[in-house]
Amino acid sequence: ALPKNKTKKTFRYVDGNVGAIHFFCNYEESRGNYLVDVDGNRMLDVYTQISSIPIGYNHPALIKVMTNPNNVSAFVNRPALGILPPENFPEKLFESLLSIAPSGMNRVQTMACGSCSNENAFKSMFIWYRNKERGYASPSEQEVGTCMINQSPGCPDLSILSFMGAFHGRTMGCLATTHSKAIHKLDIPSFDWPIAPFPKLQYPLEEFVRENAQEEARCLEEVEDLIVKWRQKRKPVAGIVIEPIQAEGGDNHASPDFFIKLRNIARKHGCAFHVDEVQTGGGTTGKFWAHEHWGLDDPADIVSFSKKLLTGGYYHRDELQPDKPYRIFNTWMGDPSKNLFLSEVLNVIRRENLLEEVTRSGKALLQGLYSLQTQYPHILSRARGQGTFCAIDACSDATRDSIMLKARNKGLFMGSCGEKTIRFRPALVFKEYHVHQLLNILNDILAEHK
Amino acid sequence: ALPKNKTKKTFRYVDGNVGAIHFFCNYEESRGNYLVDVDGNRMLDVYTQISSIPIGYNHPALIKVMTNPNNVSAFVNRPALGILPPENFPEKLFESLLSIAPSGMNRVQTMACGSCSNENAFKSMFIWYRNKERGYASPSEQEVGTCMINQSPGCPDLSILSFMGAFHGRTMGCLATTHSKAIHKLDIPSFDWPIAPFPKLQYPLEEFVRENAQEEARCLEEVEDLIVKWRQKRKPVAGIVIEPIQAEGGDNHASPDFFIKLRNIARKHGCAFHVDEVQTGGGTTGKFWAHEHWGLDDPADIVSFSKKLLTGGYYHRDELQPDKPYRIFNTWMGDPSKNLFLSEVLNVIRRENLLEEVTRSGKALLQGLYSLQTQYPHILSRARGQGTFCAIDACSDATRDSIMLKARNKGLFMGSCGEKTIRFRPALVFKEYHVHQLLNILNDILAEHK
Repeated sequence: ALPKNKTKKTFRYVDGNVGAIHFFCNYEESRGNYLVDVDGNRMLDVYTQISSIPIGYNHPALIKVMTNPNNVSAFVNRPALGILPPENFPEKLFESLLSIAPSGMNRVQTMACGSCSNENAFKSMFIWYRNKERGYASPSEQEVGTCMINQSPGCPDLSILSFMGAFHGRTMGCLATTHSKAIHKLDIPSFDWPIAPFPKLQYPLEEFVRENAQEEARCLEEVEDLIVKWRQKRKPVAGIVIEPIQAEGGDNHASPDFFIKLRNIARKHGCAFHVDEVQTGGGTTGKFWAHEHWGLDDPADIVSFSKKLLTGGYYHRDELQPDKPYRIFNTWMGDPSKNLFLSEVLNVIRRENLLEEVTRSGKALLQGLYSLQTQYPHILSRARGQGTFCAIDACSDATRDSIMLKARNKGLFMGSCGEKTIRFRPALVFKEYHVHQLLNILNDILAEHK
Repeated sequence: ALPKNKTKKTFRYVDGNVGAIHFFCNYEESRGNYLVDVDGNRMLDVYTQISSIPIGYNHPALIKVMTNPNNVSAFVNRPALGILPPENFPEKLFESLLSIAPSGMNRVQTMACGSCSNENAFKSMFIWYRNKERGYASPSEQEVGTCMINQSPGCPDLSILSFMGAFHGRTMGCLATTHSKAIHKLDIPSFDWPIAPFPKLQYPLEEFVRENAQEEARCLEEVEDLIVKWRQKRKPVAGIVIEPIQAEGGDNHASPDFFIKLRNIARKHGCAFHVDEVQTGGGTTGKFWAHEHWGLDDPADIVSFSKKLLTGGYYHRDELQPDKPYRIFNTWMGDPSKNLFLSEVLNVIRRENLLEEVTRSGKALLQGLYSLQTQYPHILSRARGQGTFCAIDACSDATRDSIMLKARNKGLFMGSCGEKTIRFRPALVFKEYHVHQLLNILNDILAEHK
């Protein structure tokens, strides 16, 4: 028989020695932009569960999804979507993910989380690349045989080109393209894949156009060199993966020109081009997808998402569709109940014009950060952002951490990234008056800072 | 502004050329063991969404979770569990996952799906192994530096030993330990990791004890040889991963003695021992965990789960706890709303003594399969099973597929695995009268079979 509850077990989350817990939360009492902790402290939350809460806590539109009896089945009968989808699944996808598909993207594949999305996107690029290489012929017996024992040619020595400072997830394929912090990667075996420098730009971007263009040209040259070098090493680059703004790596921006040229390099060398919008997607930059700011003529091959979309997944071009069933597959392949919530999120975004709101709040926030760094140049620098996807650097990691802790005690919960960066990742319902509240708290702390 | 719904997009699931769709389902009308398709056909479902529906469709206990207002917050405010867990999360874990922790397992880490669970379990084993190797000292500067560019010693050449026929998931780390079907692996780069033979036993097990023991001894010898060989290759085996019953690979069993000896080999060579219970866990073998049938004195180091548990994750011993925060981490790290459902599933299992039910139904099912293969020896062979986790082989893949299709038309939905195997994966509410219904349908088909 099943053992009775054993209350003596412990679990990782509450182990103070090694856990990463900030604090326990009272989500029932949290509302909109305000997160309430276990002691009842109410905080303006501009970190939003690592940028994954789209329209604030306990939004009435999401609660309505829960109380609609038509939706019960989607919650209690989680299907194996790849083989037995619910009758209404196409319709629900049209209402949700396909209604916001980036230009040029005809197809979507749902997945359960960001890492799974990128892993499967990489697999799609490898499959696409090898099908091209073999002229769309059937795989040889040797390929079929060797793949079962992890050997080439069945498991070929292909690579994905990524950038220093990138974060694409932590499962082993993703982790081979992640280069933001050592703690993510230490002790985990990896692949010998090429890593290009990401442009280190000077901010504000509009004041350093010439210097930044030079830096971007240097990085693009390195990308082409690496593609050639890895081809010579017989580990050809099947795909290039990049974030529109490097988030975990320290909120590093690049210009639309850089990305357009990168896309052209991918095209020229026969590599797929994968834009990872896991953190930038969902409206936070003022457009639904950050890469819409680039004005690409030739769309990306893959755009992956998760977080604010509430479900993981990726859009892709027709060519990136695997040629056979079960090549991209797992038990759940997403979760239809998350699509129901996403449909409502999109309705709220449309109804309340939240992208315009984000653009407005974002301008006020960035303007405020510029003022702060002008006022406190010994403490703050490099304010930058797009929409409300903003960041500013402290003079050291210790100062950054101290500011964040003081802010929390004054009712403002922020996130960090990179070495000494504070990142702002509010929900889409973050309004101008929240900006002022945030700036007031920061100003108080900086004024007292020694 | 956000684009309006675009209804011209297509998506993978409904693409007849390459999709893996069996049929669309009407989950609202499905009940208990019966799945209803889009045309209203009602089928006894013994595949249960690839073995992931624990207590049948639309179980009232699960619907009650949805309608309990105390639970709303867990659904609409998905937290970043690693940093900001809900106040009641420890309590909910005690009620759910920790109440069924395997013996010797003190800790649990939740994850979103089976692949993520195994990926992170592998990472835990690598971290544990390297910490042992460096005598629990801090990593060197060289390690910290090289890991950022995917090079050793920071990203060391460690390996995981797996078995031919195994399935541990499809993300790139998991996929390097999966060896069930070529379609899963073709064209995806992999790791040079050792792969041991899994015993090919003769069934019924009790009639071939001596032959099977010889076969198991041969495989164990090969395991030790591979561990030594890979150590000499300077790619030491950090962990051994194995399923209690190889599921996707064709329902391959091994004896408790085999697993106990394998655990001892892992201990002897300093490798972690990881039991993958993603498909076998959750009660379907008559015990909550299939490996409880072995009577291990020295518990496993890691036990991973997903599917019937409704959330992914893994239990682990204290030693497998990473030494620092953020080493095992991602945005969501599971989903508290799934734990709410799991608590109710466990209540139902306890209240209705479903493990006893599974044992009873399983005996009737296996007995019935024995009778069928005696009656139709030219068509069926190798009936085998534990609890309701049963399987039988057809004489060819074509015959297997034909039987499955006919069964579906007569109201019985089964799954396949391996080359020519039919697998039975009913929910835990599968009773003896369902067994008789199943056997009657199979008997009708076999009687008509030419």
